[in-house]
Amino acid sequence: MASQGDSKWVYSFGAGATEGRADMKNLLGGKGANLAEMANLGLPVPPGFTITTEVCTYFYANGRNYPPELKSQVETAVKRLEKAMDASFGDPANPLLVSVRSGARASMPGMMDTVLNLGLNDATAAGLAKRSGDARFAYDSYRRFIQMYSNVVLDVDHHHFEEILDNHKRDKSHNLDTDLSAEDWQAVIEDYKKAVEHELGKPFPQDVQEQLWGAVGAVFGSWMNARAITYRKLHDIPASWGTAVNVQCMVFGNMGNDCATGVAFTRNPSTGENAFYGEYLVNAQGEDVVAGIRTPQHLTIAGKLANKSDLPAMEEVMPEVFNQLNEVRLKLEKHYRDMQDIEFTVQQNKLFMLQTRNGKRTAPAALKIAVDLANEGLIDQAEAVRRIDPASLDQLLHPTLDPKADRKVIAKGLPASPGAASGKVVFTADEAETQAGQGESVILCRIETSPEDIHGMHAARGILTTRGGMTSHAAVVARGMGRACVSGAGDLRIDYKSKIMMVRGLTVKEGDILTIDGSTGEVMLGEVPTIQPELSGDFATLMGWADGIRRMKIRTNAETPLDARTARKFGAEGIGLSRTEHMFFDPDRILAVREMILAENEAGRRAALAKLEPFQKKDFVELFTIMSGLPVTIRLLDPPLHEFLPNTDAEMEEVAKATGTDLLRVNHRVVQLHEANPMLGHRGCRLGITYPEIYEMQARAIFSAAAEVCKTTGETVMPEVMIPLIGTKKELDILKAVVDRVAKEVMESTGVTFEYMVGTMIELPRAALKAGEIAESAEFFSYGTNDLTQTTFGLSRDDAGAFLPEYQRQGILEHDPFQTLDQDGVGELIAIATERGRKVRPNIKLGICGEHGGDPASISFCEKVGLDYVSCSPYRVPIARLAAAQAALAADTVKRD
Amino acid sequence: MASQGDSKWVYSFGAGATEGRADMKNLLGGKGANLAEMANLGLPVPPGFTITTEVCTYFYANGRNYPPELKSQVETAVKRLEKAMDASFGDPANPLLVSVRSGARASMPGMMDTVLNLGLNDATAAGLAKRSGDARFAYDSYRRFIQMYSNVVLDVDHHHFEEILDNHKRDKSHNLDTDLSAEDWQAVIEDYKKAVEHELGKPFPQDVQEQLWGAVGAVFGSWMNARAITYRKLHDIPASWGTAVNVQCMVFGNMGNDCATGVAFTRNPSTGENAFYGEYLVNAQGEDVVAGIRTPQHLTIAGKLANKSDLPAMEEVMPEVFNQLNEVRLKLEKHYRDMQDIEFTVQQNKLFMLQTRNGKRTAPAALKIAVDLANEGLIDQAEAVRRIDPASLDQLLHPTLDPKADRKVIAKGLPASPGAASGKVVFTADEAETQAGQGESVILCRIETSPEDIHGMHAARGILTTRGGMTSHAAVVARGMGRACVSGAGDLRIDYKSKIMMVRGLTVKEGDILTIDGSTGEVMLGEVPTIQPELSGDFATLMGWADGIRRMKIRTNAETPLDARTARKFGAEGIGLSRTEHMFFDPDRILAVREMILAENEAGRRAALAKLEPFQKKDFVELFTIMSGLPVTIRLLDPPLHEFLPNTDAEMEEVAKATGTDLLRVNHRVVQLHEANPMLGHRGCRLGITYPEIYEMQARAIFSAAAEVCKTTGETVMPEVMIPLIGTKKELDILKAVVDRVAKEVMESTGVTFEYMVGTMIELPRAALKAGEIAESAEFFSYGTNDLTQTTFGLSRDDAGAFLPEYQRQGILEHDPFQTLDQDGVGELIAIATERGRKVRPNIKLGICGEHGGDPASISFCEKVGLDYVSCSPYRVPIARLAAAQAALAADTVKRD
Repeated sequence: MASQGDSKWVYSFGAGATEGRADMKNLLGGKGANLAEMANLGLPVPPGFTITTEVCTYFYANGRNYPPELKSQVETAVKRLEKAMDASFGDPANPLLVSVRSGARASMPGMMDTVLNLGLNDATAAGLAKRSGDARFAYDSYRRFIQMYSNVVLDVDHHHFEEILDNHKRDKSHNLDTDLSAEDWQAVIEDYKKAVEHELGKPFPQDVQEQLWGAVGAVFGSWMNARAITYRKLHDIPASWGTAVNVQCMVFGNMGNDCATGVAFTRNPSTGENAFYGEYLVNAQGEDVVAGIRTPQHLTIAGKLANKSDLPAMEEVMPEVFNQLNEVRLKLEKHYRDMQDIEFTVQQNKLFMLQTRNGKRTAPAALKIAVDLANEGLIDQAEAVRRIDPASLDQLLHPTLDPKADRKVIAKGLPASPGAASGKVVFTADEAETQAGQGESVILCRIETSPEDIHGMHAARGILTTRGGMTSHAAVVARGMGRACVSGAGDLRIDYKSKIMMVRGLTVKEGDILTIDGSTGEVMLGEVPTIQPELSGDFATLMGWADGIRRMKIRTNAETPLDARTARKFGAEGIGLSRTEHMFFDPDRILAVREMILAENEAGRRAALAKLEPFQKKDFVELFTIMSGLPVTIRLLDPPLHEFLPNTDAEMEEVAKATGTDLLRVNHRVVQLHEANPMLGHRGCRLGITYPEIYEMQARAIFSAAAEVCKTTGETVMPEVMIPLIGTKKELDILKAVVDRVAKEVMESTGVTFEYMVGTMIELPRAALKAGEIAESAEFFSYGTNDLTQTTFGLSRDDAGAFLPEYQRQGILEHDPFQTLDQDGVGELIAIATERGRKVRPNIKLGICGEHGGDPASISFCEKVGLDYVSCSPYRVPIARLAAAQAALAADTVKRD
Repeated sequence: MASQGDSKWVYSFGAGATEGRADMKNLLGGKGANLAEMANLGLPVPPGFTITTEVCTYFYANGRNYPPELKSQVETAVKRLEKAMDASFGDPANPLLVSVRSGARASMPGMMDTVLNLGLNDATAAGLAKRSGDARFAYDSYRRFIQMYSNVVLDVDHHHFEEILDNHKRDKSHNLDTDLSAEDWQAVIEDYKKAVEHELGKPFPQDVQEQLWGAVGAVFGSWMNARAITYRKLHDIPASWGTAVNVQCMVFGNMGNDCATGVAFTRNPSTGENAFYGEYLVNAQGEDVVAGIRTPQHLTIAGKLANKSDLPAMEEVMPEVFNQLNEVRLKLEKHYRDMQDIEFTVQQNKLFMLQTRNGKRTAPAALKIAVDLANEGLIDQAEAVRRIDPASLDQLLHPTLDPKADRKVIAKGLPASPGAASGKVVFTADEAETQAGQGESVILCRIETSPEDIHGMHAARGILTTRGGMTSHAAVVARGMGRACVSGAGDLRIDYKSKIMMVRGLTVKEGDILTIDGSTGEVMLGEVPTIQPELSGDFATLMGWADGIRRMKIRTNAETPLDARTARKFGAEGIGLSRTEHMFFDPDRILAVREMILAENEAGRRAALAKLEPFQKKDFVELFTIMSGLPVTIRLLDPPLHEFLPNTDAEMEEVAKATGTDLLRVNHRVVQLHEANPMLGHRGCRLGITYPEIYEMQARAIFSAAAEVCKTTGETVMPEVMIPLIGTKKELDILKAVVDRVAKEVMESTGVTFEYMVGTMIELPRAALKAGEIAESAEFFSYGTNDLTQTTFGLSRDDAGAFLPEYQRQGILEHDPFQTLDQDGVGELIAIATERGRKVRPNIKLGICGEHGGDPASISFCEKVGLDYVSCSPYRVPIARLAAAQAALAADTVKRD
């Protein structure tokens, strides 16, 4: 950065004097940097200048004042524009008009404010009418400017203007805006100005300098509006980045039928298909396309046909300009080596590029584009792997609608964001958030969405709009969030007041269940069954590349055969956590478990455990068979025994009867086992210490199963017996002795020799600190980050809901520490344990099996610390595979095969 | 240690060839080392030899076998004794007799086995009769030997012998053992031998070598008997120390009326008075005195008079020997520079010393002796401070009986161990342990106690026996443990079978409440009120010396005026923890607290808090006034709000009525606030974050009180506002801002300027790890080791009772980590936090306020880490003062005034 004295706050672009570049995003914002880059590439960019993000930072650091040099730098830049355009800012005879737009480092679509047609006032509007010879265009532009400027800069609500326009249209029996004549618009303008004066107590500003600085201030101000703050929070964008302001000469898509405006993606952002994809409107300004007021037309004939549109494609209407645009598309992709999201305007058959940026895309599209770009040689495989947000894979892995299932399709809209979702109908973003907060799945149904709806869209499973196209606000945002979305389902009529939605005589009420399919645009009544996704094609290709890169192994947390099979299908390389107690709740087993708990003495417990053992053995035989030879970590009983006892009197009576125990005994035992803080109570290895017969039975079941599978399949079985909640080496020593003895007994009685390991969860701060000692006995550590987070923070996951949202709101915690590992605190304990464990036992196997094992940021931490594997739930295995590969790339510990 | 080849396993003493010294206790045991030392001092010690503790270690390390050289070394040593005594081991004409006794590094009274008169058999007994001319003595000795040897070595229960003796006495109508003639004893001996042969299937061993090695083996074997294991566990003695075996020539106190045996303390072990204190019996062997079978006589005339005894004192009966003994007493004290516990025997007017060791004493006696020895110039003040076990002060600080209270004295015994205790009557050690385990105070009532009763004596508040003197087992052990004890209350008759105790027609049943006063010997029915102890005299002197030595300050945990005053009286130098929520439960306040919790919104909460504020302010005014100028740390609200709400339907209805709230709302709020793990829930600073108005009110109450006390007393008030359960710096920043703002407001509104600090508890592992960051905002840390232990171990103090005893039994945890700080785990976190905190803020004030603040071992750790103060409950303040001084002496960080 230049020193304060000669600070450069303004960067020009276009008209042969571009000062910026694409890599100056931090300073110029994404839009400004890319406008400069396009100008450098020789593309037709209307000239303009960017006021840097440093001005924004200065603005907020200095009580919303600008740096002193700014005014003269802007004046100079405007002068350059006047010269380039041969027009003068505020000159009634030949007025220069500009747009003023925000542009932050990261794209924040619709989050901040834009003003078009700035420079118009009563005099320049008349001048523009005269000079352009198109009075209707001039006054249409002026009324747009008044409306936008008043709304954005002067904070006059747009309903004032809508009412005026509606009244005029009704008076004149006009249906469409395009029906209005120049005189109509002039009358509307008069009413607009009156409305503004009425609202503000002063007239709409006629001074173009006042207009310019008002708009610049509004853009900087919008950085701190509620919408922008929410968006940044959702997308982890620091407030300190600030926004730039782009001031650019206006070009007009609304000067007649040789004019147009459009937005496009260089490839299909829904599917990733390498086909030009976009929409345009003839004789319109940019906001008309994204606002969803007029139904946009397709760019290409292919697009038109695919979407069964009756409206002509740009390829047909203005083929030359279309070809020019298609060349720009190819040039941009080659230059940026990624799919671009572009905005353009055609003014009197001349093409102008207004924006390019990396396009948002669905997860399948991201995959396809990355794989295609790599295959096209534009990027390498590592870059393709880097390009995919691991979390986005989630969208590919969840079920889609079962094509064979009955579905009552009540309406059809655009397939705006793929995936299927069912849920209760809600009509407001607030209601969506409330209901979702109570654990409900909801479908947010809106006529159209706006940035004010972001929080509700985030909370909903799916979004349904009755207006707007594939690039409408709803569609773009839903794709970014990975929410299913059907947009523009025009047959549906929403009545917000009555909280109903009607379609052909059918009424859908708030709370009714609806299913939407964002891949087909179908809207269905009720819940429709789903099927598993296909995991081949681009997905398999990219995963293969990722597997070639990553160093860490990926295991899964699974105890049921279904989960184990799912995980293997998703590429799991073993089981990192099999929670044996999940096997205890089965109806055939819970009785024996309860008998064991209610037994008066060890003999009674052993008798009950003997009934359980065959079940447990069977479980392990299944798991070992499914995982054929891959390591399987089995955690011995962990939860406190009271979790297996009932709570109500009726249930206790039932248990008493079923187990043949005195009801008083049942009651007594329930009371006796009650705990004030079960999380910190008689559980984990503490059960093994006090009732060694339980762990003995489990060890016997594990080893008998291992012996049986070895014998029948001839494959190696690699059980890893994991002792939970170890806090001292002595606990592990005592319980390892039990496990080792049972292993020996089973080998002797079966005549089968098998390998096994005994290790421990590291899930208590004390265990992490004493990891050196514990490693003398433990052959592996598995970091149980759920409990380790609970104990390190002194925070119960079950109870944190009462205050964690407030903690996140106040910025005390950036993330929910149960979702993303607290690297500072919990992470330090993991680092300490890893270092101390390895020092004592250099080849100790280290993994993580908490929820964090499926979180990309946490996986990156695991790579940094050097763990051997992460273990996560089956559906997160592909995410973990990809995240591990990215982590290896970042840490430069790429696997060398 | 010598190498295995030429190992020396046997050390001789006495008869001019002593090889040991007092400082060889580890090798020779306490008894052996002191016998050697006495011999070196020229005192009359019967010659003997010590088989070292290394033999014990070898014995257990080698499958209970002896080192090969041992046999010949023992033979040589025996030969020396034969020469010295001019007698031969096993020679019927002139037999050498020996005693075989255990002797470990630390004294373990009565824990292990002893055999006297070894070397007697049919032939040598006859020879002894002939040579001594006293057949009665010879056969009395032989029957004693058979009884002892059979019991200790051959494991024949002593009831066999008691029955035989009782039958003989009944047949001959003898009352006392002394009534039996030589012939009587010979008949008894025949029956004894038959009984042994009947029990064992082989005759009583006549081979004296077999006798000797049998006795040696029994002593080594006794090191691992249950009594010894229990004793070691209670007294933290490692099993690895082992015991030595002392073989010593017999001298006889039972050869006639010019013979005697006795035990004595060089000063009074109950009061510490510098007066010879002891008991003896004429014509008896040592075990007769301690066994409590015959009532012993006092050594001194003063002792006789003080105890209103009719039996003549040794000073009267054998004045010359008494004077000789008194000289030995003075010589030993001067030599050992401590009060000695000695054993002696007078054989035909010749004095022999059998043992000396540092005498066990009551806490008041320990104090007086230490102060007196320092004043006498035998030790310096630091040594006096070192001499007192801080935990023993507990005995001095607890209430004694109110002399003005009515007391129904039902019996009187000996004042065997001072202090008063009330509790439920139990008659067995097991019952005492069971009831105490359930939280009951119990008085263990026994005819007499034996080493088998140790666990029950430990569990009881007080011990009452109907037999035995001031040096009986009950008395010695009770004094060591600091339990109140009344011994030899002969009017009471205990019937174990019916579980009753009778005295003059009154029947006391098991479960009745009894009070005993161990300082007067009184036994009272019911519970008698108590008064506070005096803390002047020796106590004050020693505490003064300790205060001069210690570096750390001692504060107290107190919130009531009573506690604060008590603590100041005990020398507290401030309050380290004042738990404001304790002030919330007062009946006048709980209503407002509940209104606050039930309020629908912040305004409602503020209204309720406004009612609480004057109460809180009043509390703090009182505390500040009592602590006049000393620092007072006030912890803001810590427990979860549901702790203030009722649980039962009836109570909820009451609360609804009292607060004018809908019952449904109360119900709902109770359900809403319920937590799965309250310890890890919505508490501590999390309340302050979500309901800042609570902390605001508390801060205002604190500062208004500070301003008021400043104004009225003119003294400095030093409030330290402590934010609990901090896990992140941001929490502290947010809440510190609230506190600072309120402080400013109060200073402005009152016009009083006061100093204050804002700091935090460090009670979460995360806080300890992030202490560097937190110290940027915190002016002090107080280690909340209760919660830090809970979270570091993942261990709920409320629930650990279900398995902690098993953990201690299996040696997984040496100590209850809630009583003695886990230095390895929790301690490392404290060390980390201290280092990181000091690095950022070198003058940060550091203290500890968990229960551990009153535990000497934990205090020693705090000194090592370099904390500024410890804070503990009022009654533990003197303990902490002394422990801190000892810690400073150990760490050589003695304060330089």
